[in-house]
Amino acid sequence: MVIDCHGHYTTAPPELERYRQRQIKNLTDPSQFPTAEPLTITDDQIRESLENTQLRLQRERGTDITLFSPRAVGMGHHIGNASTSLRWSQICNDLIFRICSLYPQNFLGVCQLPQSPGVPPVNCVGELERCVETLGFVGCNLNPDPSGGHWSDPPLTDRFWYPLYEKIVELNVPAMVHVSGSCNPNFHATGAHYLNGDTTAFMQFLTSDIFKDFKTLKFVIPHGGGAVPYHWGRYRGIAQDMKRPPLGELLLGNVYFDTCVYHQPGIDLLTKVIPVDNILFASEMVGAVKGIDAETGYYFDDTKRYIEAVPWLNDEDRSKIYEGNARSVYNRIDGSLSRRKGGRTPAESPNSAGL
Amino acid sequence: MVIDCHGHYTTAPPELERYRQRQIKNLTDPSQFPTAEPLTITDDQIRESLENTQLRLQRERGTDITLFSPRAVGMGHHIGNASTSLRWSQICNDLIFRICSLYPQNFLGVCQLPQSPGVPPVNCVGELERCVETLGFVGCNLNPDPSGGHWSDPPLTDRFWYPLYEKIVELNVPAMVHVSGSCNPNFHATGAHYLNGDTTAFMQFLTSDIFKDFKTLKFVIPHGGGAVPYHWGRYRGIAQDMKRPPLGELLLGNVYFDTCVYHQPGIDLLTKVIPVDNILFASEMVGAVKGIDAETGYYFDDTKRYIEAVPWLNDEDRSKIYEGNARSVYNRIDGSLSRRKGGRTPAESPNSAGL
Repeated sequence: MVIDCHGHYTTAPPELERYRQRQIKNLTDPSQFPTAEPLTITDDQIRESLENTQLRLQRERGTDITLFSPRAVGMGHHIGNASTSLRWSQICNDLIFRICSLYPQNFLGVCQLPQSPGVPPVNCVGELERCVETLGFVGCNLNPDPSGGHWSDPPLTDRFWYPLYEKIVELNVPAMVHVSGSCNPNFHATGAHYLNGDTTAFMQFLTSDIFKDFKTLKFVIPHGGGAVPYHWGRYRGIAQDMKRPPLGELLLGNVYFDTCVYHQPGIDLLTKVIPVDNILFASEMVGAVKGIDAETGYYFDDTKRYIEAVPWLNDEDRSKIYEGNARSVYNRIDGSLSRRKGGRTPAESPNSAGL
Repeated sequence: MVIDCHGHYTTAPPELERYRQRQIKNLTDPSQFPTAEPLTITDDQIRESLENTQLRLQRERGTDITLFSPRAVGMGHHIGNASTSLRWSQICNDLIFRICSLYPQNFLGVCQLPQSPGVPPVNCVGELERCVETLGFVGCNLNPDPSGGHWSDPPLTDRFWYPLYEKIVELNVPAMVHVSGSCNPNFHATGAHYLNGDTTAFMQFLTSDIFKDFKTLKFVIPHGGGAVPYHWGRYRGIAQDMKRPPLGELLLGNVYFDTCVYHQPGIDLLTKVIPVDNILFASEMVGAVKGIDAETGYYFDDTKRYIEAVPWLNDEDRSKIYEGNARSVYNRIDGSLSRRKGGRTPAESPNSAGL
């Protein structure tokens, strides 16, 4: 089985974006009540939005199941306030749940959290619980910078975040560290802010004792870990200069990297420097890079091809990257898949109309 | 000849830091006049600060000359105002000039600019001219985020920066894109802010037409280009999706990467994906990582060893990386070295006492 641990619903019907624009427009109303207008998306619209995109690419590339979350750039935690963010997160997470119910063999849910700049992350506990316990999701995306490029909240290792981590650990789900869009003109979202977020989070972990406080807390750093594997020597050296433990001991029991690196030399480097147990297969399709690489004739984000071509990986290594590591990091995958196999229907789907 | 294009004076006598602390203390005086107290550092102190550090490492590693600039973390453009920054830049640049005068065979000067958040970069023109025309410096360091981790100024591609670029182009010197310290607790300086600055600047260049406006403007992106070479496929793909020209055509006539990547797999990747004409040798010694790698028994930042070990580089490639590319990007190196060889003494050194 091949599990793609990183996919976003980037192909939603336009009704979703129209709903969001209405919600944003309503923010100019000082009461900032969430929009009362309903969102109506039918099951057929959902099917249509996926059949020729994610589902076709799964078939063509031989990936079986995608851990699927709302569009990352769209999370927009910097827009409005905590109520705005909660309502928008519920809408987006409910859509993911409907997708997982329509295609239980193809998708498992990962939720967006209702973060908001300056608001204590404990505020996300309710939506996280709902998604994991009621909707059957297996993980969450955690935005290290809810301000969208202004980095105004404390680092991920600050106690500000601890009450949320307590719930994450209790629910036994990992968090993928994933920024959203950038409202800072310095940072292009997918070309700079995403990778900076990954690099920044790793260095926060390196300089903290967070994994002494939360021994079972697990983070997945996407986009191949930002700049980290390319600078693995720098990080080993900085840790040594700072009298920190070796990186393996310090954080590799808690920090994992995905394979969203879109060329062969990058995947070669990733698999050379990061232990195979810490690498999870992912493509982020349909995501940051949609085109075909003229140099190879294949999609840039068809990352399975690169992994297949790494000469030093054996079958056991690939099995870990494709499936085993995802099952052990996302502890709830096994239970979710066996329930589905056993024919148990998922919890009743939120009504497709009037969400 | 081996030219190390990236070294900072990280080993200055403690008098320099004490001066800076006095300057910062004086900022609480509303008049914010620069400190009147003199800085006194003797030539012998300078010699002592270099002999067992940079000069010893040059000898041991077989590098001939270092393009030497003030300590990057110490630039601290976010501290005080433009007057603070100007006075501090003059002090630091004068010290670099004295070093270049004491050791004309070992160092060429690269200046710190008196940037300050919100202050138009044209304000730096005077100090840049002084350093290049009077002190004989061959380049400058340009901070893409003078706010120190808040990224509050416009992107490097904004017209805000253009008057400074006009002078840079007129003087025929390149700018190394180099942030300073971070006053944002999210960003560790050398482990996150540096690499993020590199990645961010590259993406700004990719999305702009700055090199149509300044055809001869040259930027060196240090630290191996941040996350860029590791994600070269991502950048090629994003450019293609955005209907931008191929990266070679778009920016490789203007953007260069140094070799401050502290392990073999990183240098292998850099030299595999970036054309050899765009790679400049550098170590940043004595800099971000000072220790010896227990896995190899050599200093992490002894980057010449990694370049020597890349099997696909031939003598001509190495000659470009070590010397040729630096001479063509830093156009003033040739003139500076030939003047020194001809026995011309540099311009009179600023007085060693009472700077």
